[in-house]
This record gives sequence, C-alpha cells and structure tokens, in this order.
Amino acid sequence: MANARYRNARDQNLEAVAGNGLIDRRALLGRGMAFAGAVSAGLGPSSAAAGAEPLADDPWSLEVGDPMPPYQTRSKFEAKVARTLSNPNNEPRNSHARTPHHLLEGTTTPNGLHFAINHGGVPTIDPEKHRLVIHGLVKQPLEFTLETLSRYALTSRVLFLECGGNSAPMFSPQPLQESVQALHGLVSCAEWTGVRLSTLLEETGIDPRAKWLIAEGADSPHLSRSVPMKKALDDAMIALYQNGERIMPGNGYPMRLLLPGYEGNMNVKFLRRIKLVEQPALSMYEARTYSQILPSGKAYRFYFLQEVKSFITHPSHGMALKGPGLYEISGIAYSGTGRIEKVMVSADGGQSWAEAALQEPVQSKAFTRFRMPWRWNGGPATLQSRAWDEAGNVQPTRAEFVAARGELTKPPPVLSFPNQHYNSITSWGVASGGEVKHVYA
Amino acid sequence: MANARYRNARDQNLEAVAGNGLIDRRALLGRGMAFAGAVSAGLGPSSAAAGAEPLADDPWSLEVGDPMPPYQTRSKFEAKVARTLSNPNNEPRNSHARTPHHLLEGTTTPNGLHFAINHGGVPTIDPEKHRLVIHGLVKQPLEFTLETLSRYALTSRVLFLECGGNSAPMFSPQPLQESVQALHGLVSCAEWTGVRLSTLLEETGIDPRAKWLIAEGADSPHLSRSVPMKKALDDAMIALYQNGERIMPGNGYPMRLLLPGYEGNMNVKFLRRIKLVEQPALSMYEARTYSQILPSGKAYRFYFLQEVKSFITHPSHGMALKGPGLYEISGIAYSGTGRIEKVMVSADGGQSWAEAALQEPVQSKAFTRFRMPWRWNGGPATLQSRAWDEAGNVQPTRAEFVAARGELTKPPPVLSFPNQHYNSITSWGVASGGEVKHVYA
Repeated sequence: MANARYRNARDQNLEAVAGNGLIDRRALLGRGMAFAGAVSAGLGPSSAAAGAEPLADDPWSLEVGDPMPPYQTRSKFEAKVARTLSNPNNEPRNSHARTPHHLLEGTTTPNGLHFAINHGGVPTIDPEKHRLVIHGLVKQPLEFTLETLSRYALTSRVLFLECGGNSAPMFSPQPLQESVQALHGLVSCAEWTGVRLSTLLEETGIDPRAKWLIAEGADSPHLSRSVPMKKALDDAMIALYQNGERIMPGNGYPMRLLLPGYEGNMNVKFLRRIKLVEQPALSMYEARTYSQILPSGKAYRFYFLQEVKSFITHPSHGMALKGPGLYEISGIAYSGTGRIEKVMVSADGGQSWAEAALQEPVQSKAFTRFRMPWRWNGGPATLQSRAWDEAGNVQPTRAEFVAARGELTKPPPVLSFPNQHYNSITSWGVASGGEVKHVYA
Repeated sequence: MANARYRNARDQNLEAVAGNGLIDRRALLGRGMAFAGAVSAGLGPSSAAAGAEPLADDPWSLEVGDPMPPYQTRSKFEAKVARTLSNPNNEPRNSHARTPHHLLEGTTTPNGLHFAINHGGVPTIDPEKHRLVIHGLVKQPLEFTLETLSRYALTSRVLFLECGGNSAPMFSPQPLQESVQALHGLVSCAEWTGVRLSTLLEETGIDPRAKWLIAEGADSPHLSRSVPMKKALDDAMIALYQNGERIMPGNGYPMRLLLPGYEGNMNVKFLRRIKLVEQPALSMYEARTYSQILPSGKAYRFYFLQEVKSFITHPSHGMALKGPGLYEISGIAYSGTGRIEKVMVSADGGQSWAEAALQEPVQSKAFTRFRMPWRWNGGPATLQSRAWDEAGNVQPTRAEFVAARGELTKPPPVLSFPNQHYNSITSWGVASGGEVKHVYA
C-alpha cells in the first residue's frame, strides 16, 4: 500500500507535468530504457551484427570518397530540405521563399534556407561599386563603401527576422491544411555582423529636426521605408555578414538595414540610401500594404513590432507518428520585444499546460528552441505552445487574437485583408492513427 | 594651462589604454567624427550625389533580378572566400580544407566553409541505410537509425572543433609567411544539435568494467579512436545537425561524435560503431600520430584537450593597411576547458596590453569574438592577442611554449614532429607601409 502510494505520487509528481502524456524531463534522467519501447532498434534482424564484428560494410565503407571542394555543399540526400517558392518563374510580382522549419533543428537558420521576399527579383550587385549615402537632415552628408564600413567597430548579434505577413494563412476562418513551412516559413534567425547605425550617424551628425529616416534599397523597386530616429539610434545595424560570411544575395547583399524585432520589410535590403527627414514618407508599404482596418473600425499604421510568438515544429502538420511511445515536442519561440521568458506546452488542446525546457543561451530578439518530452498513448491529442517574453507579453489564443484583430470571412486569396502581424497559438491535432494536422483549438 | 592638463588627462585616461594606439572603446562613444580622418568617404567626386536625389542608378537598380532558388547560394563576387585544399586531386592520402578566418566575421563558421580533414575522401552515405551500433561492455547492444535517434531528447550547443594539428606551422623556427587561414584554418565553430551519448548509454546499460569506448567511422579508413567513459558520460553528443541543417558530407554526414573541447580527430565522423571496452585501442592516431616526444625526453599520449588559444583575424598576414587612422583589431578566442575569461591585445609586441571587448554571449567551448579599436600612427607595430579561460589557463608566449614543447630545427615538411596542440600567441607585424606579416615577437 505504501509502495503503491509512493509509486502513484512518483508518477504524478515526477513524471506527468500536464495531461495527455507531457512528462517532466528530469524524471527521465537515469531511468534507462525509458524510450526503449518507442525507439530503440532492439535486436531485430541486425542483432547478430550488433554483437559481432566487423560490421557488414556498405559500399561507402569500401570505396574512396569524393574530393573536398573549396566551398562544401550538402548531401544529395537532403534535396527535399528546400524553401518553397511563391513565384518560381520570376513573374513581375513579388516572390516569397519560405524556410522549412519542420526539417531544421536548433536555432540557426542556415544561409541557404533563410526566408526571403523580393519585389523585383534578386539583383546582382557588384560590391566594389555599391555605395551607401547618408544625407538629408545631417550636418555632413557622407558616402560609404563596403571597405570603409568594414573599418568601423563591428558588432555581431543573433536575431530573428520576420515578415509582417508571416502566419497570415491563420486569418482564415477554417484551419488551412498547410505545413509549418507554409504557415510560419517567413521567419528565420541568423548571426548578423555589421556597423551600428548610431555610429554612422555620429559621423554625419544629426540635425535636431530629424525625427525619421527613409531607407532605400538599390534593387529596381527602390523599396523605401520610414524608420523612427529613436529606433535608428537604439539598436539598428547596417549588416554586412550573415552567419559569418557575406550576406546572401536574396537577403540583401552586400548590405542591409537591420531593425531588431521590427517587421521584415523595414529591414531594407541592398541598402543604398538613408535620408533623415522630419516626417515619414508614407510609402506604399506604410500607407497601403501594412495599414489595416481593425474590427473597431480604426486602422493601424506604423505597427512595426513583431510580437511574441511560438510554434511547434516537431511534430507538426503533415508528419505521421509511428506508434505510441515517447516523442520530443520541440519548436521555436521569439519576441521582437526581448528575451523569451517561458514557453508552456499543452497536449490536450489547452486544458493543461507544462513548462518547456529552453535551449541556452536565451538571447534577446532571437529564436529560442523549446523542448518537452511526451508519451503518446495512441489516442487523439492536440499539441500547442504558448510563449511569454521578458516584458510579460503573452502569445494570445486564436479566439483572443481574432476578437482584437479580426479574421477573413472566407479562406484567403492573395492580398486578402487582414493579413499582417498574426501571432496566436498554433494547434496541431494528432489523430489516433498518428497523422498530424493543422486545427483550431 | 588647466585646459591643456585636462586634455592631456583625457587623452591618457579615456583614450589610450595601451601603447602604440590602442584605444578605450568607451572613449569613442558620442565623440562623432572620431573615425572620419580614416574612413569616412568624405565629399569627394560623389559629394554632389550625397546631397542630391535621385541617386545615379547602377544597372542592377534598373533591371529585374534573378529568381529565388529553393536553396540559395552566395554572390558570385564572393568566390574568393574559399577553403584552401591540401589535396585537391584527391590523391590517396589525407586531405585538409582550411577555413578562411581573415574573410569571415562574427563567431559562426558557415557550413560551406567549416574546416574538414578526411583520410579517404568524402563518402556518399545513404542516411536511410546508415546505422549506429553500440555494443561491447553493455547490458544490451542496440542499433540506431537516424530516425530512431531523432525521437530522443535533442540538445543544441555552439562548439568550436579544432584539429590537434591546427597551428602546427608555428613549430617552425622561423615565422612562415602564411595567412591566418594557413596557420589557424583547422578550427571552426557551429551550432550542433544531436543526442547526448549519455542518453543512449542509459538505453544500452553499462557494464562496470567499461572504462573506454572505441568510436569507429563508416568511411573506408574506418577511423577509430578511444574515448574515456568519463568524457562519454559528461558532454559527448551524437550530432545530427550543423547550424540548423543536416551535417555537411565532409563534416560527418549523417552523424558524428562530438567531444566538446577535444581534438578534432577524436570527434569521429560518419559514426557507425561505439564499442565499450576495458582498455584503449591504441589505434594509429593514438600510438603514432598524436603521441609526441617532449624536450624532456618523455612522450605524451592521450593529450585530448584543445587548450586556450586566440588569434587576430583583422588585420592579419597578407593584408595592407591603407594609411594611418582608426582600425578595429578583431579576432577569435576559445578554450577546450570552458568559457573565455578575457583577451588582452597589444600593439607594441607585448610591452603593454589592453583588455578587448568580448562579443556576448560568451559560451563555453565556443568561439568568442574580441574587438579593440586602434589608431595606427603609420609606424611599425606588432599586434598580438592573448586569451585567458575561466579556469585561469593562459595562452603561452611563443618562448614559453617552445621551452615546454619544443620546435622544429628546420621549417616543416609534411609530418615533421612535433606538430600537435600548438597554442601560443600569434604576432602580426605591421610595416610603415601598412603591409602585415607573420612575425615572432
């Protein structure tokens, strides 16, 4: 009886941390065989090999391999790990390339797979000829080359970058049957290195009338956005390197503006001009694309911040669990406000929650990977994650979000409104057969 | 007089932090124009453009750009940023690919440029067929596929990886006129994600007689190394992902052993077998390559740790400074023991030192980028960096190192001894004309 009670308490207190199979990670330590029922290969047909030596050799164990290239590329077996393209034939409209989060791990987005949106294709810019001009309400207009910029004090920072329209498919009144890549693929995270914009503005000097700057790209659309001077002097950066090497062409080579935590479109790529002004430019992206009517009847404008968000990447829509047993639920959280404070995970559609482990170091305005062990009992489950940032902001439920921001009345065609700054909880429904689908819960 | 004294004190206390131009970074803040004499482009031929609009358009500002690919690649203008190859024709000997640190920034080594050494070329391994067997002194031998491994609790960690032979050219009695890539290119840093080896050993159980494990690769040399069980149970990892995506073929695809802080060769790539044993195997790399005779007459064996090291990447050998003025001295520091505690920089060959700024976050057993502003007066200078780790280990001077470990009597041909675990201070000599060369100082 005492034993039974002890076992019971132990199961409740050390193992289950929330309903439908969520488990305390610490309870797994030192238990041995904890995962065996689910995933150890056991001693099947290859059991003889597991005890014997030498091992049977595959062809690659018997042949000389390939030469090493100056710049190595990934295995041919990884071709499926690719960005999805909205405009593969480069027709005269904008073009999206989405990051396959369900096929990646950790917190770094490799450069080949960083999301990008371009409005006039990817320009081929000669870095020796490219110039950055800072002018307008400055004391001395200046022009910088890539080389002169590289002489300044550089700074490196791991930062997420997210399109204001990321997750827009979730404005749909019904849950679209789409992968985490289709729903949330317009956000990525990299280590960026460059020069603080405040350093360059010390060089030019600032006329006190300057309240905004207009940043302009060198690609053919000459995309321009207005940025408050306060942000420019806070943590804005002219980025020159992405994950250690020069910026990828689709991400702004040879230099781009980075405004940590602000919507992607403002982080002007191929940056060629910063003009200090008294009033914002009200460019197309400010007056039209990113201004939206709210359910209250008011419009929002200059809604720059990418707010706290999280989503589960493993498992996620389109995957199939291979039988009951132990799994790791894992995903990504981030906030344009600062650090992620905690991520709660539910396996029962939000009835109960448990706190996930966060991968260290947790950095401000960067991806934070969260992890939670889960014992799937083979029955239906609804997986959710919910993030809090260090300022106390919490990711809303879908119902809370829709009440404040509205939703579409029909599933979205291109350019339906509202379509910006969506950040509610995402839910994945696991069916008894193991199939994972996008649901609203 | 008061003013002059004040200016003098200000220059000494706020600006100079060590001899020959090293400057306190904080003294530069808010000073404006501090760098202008050196690097601002000023109002030369393009000054009209700097005040006028629209800017003159280059061709890429007038044309539609290229389509975005599923997996993007870098600009064609970056082809010079490449690994150098010791065996480009893949002759039947080992092959080195070195990281171009002088052309990179931040702390991440992009996957295309991570160093690699392979002893039988790069194998083409089918990840669906690859297996990892753990056997020997275990309670239950087990076999794992990539998929079953991916079900376990994963962990991510930013780690440097360094060949035991990195920096070996500095055993030469004369300073070889080689770049930082040739001298120190056999070290890189990435975010690795995988399963802790201790988790898998909980699954197999451990026979108490097991004191070592032997790790074996699936490539044709079947490279094998012995690892103490203590390290296996501490922080060893079976890595599956490198900077977010699957491991590069040359770095061990589809899985490798990672022993944080231990010499590269032990981090067995293409890992197919871990056998628990009582005694080390004394494989070729243990009994021959990595055992060396010390000046004392004794040999060292099982010298696994990569000790505290740093080197300056900007400026470095082969570069030319373009006239007196402000520069940023920047480089990389790391220690197999833990975190970097501080990095001191000298511009006068070690007569005086100043503490460099360390890029946050400073992570254990990972690259730490250090930075120091420097006003070059146009005269000769000798730039050095010296790192301390959190355990109090300090990078030796070259004289200290050679006294303990010896040096070659002639410049090194291939396979000269000693050639392992070199970690002294590196010195770059700046000539009056601005040319930077490798020197001993």
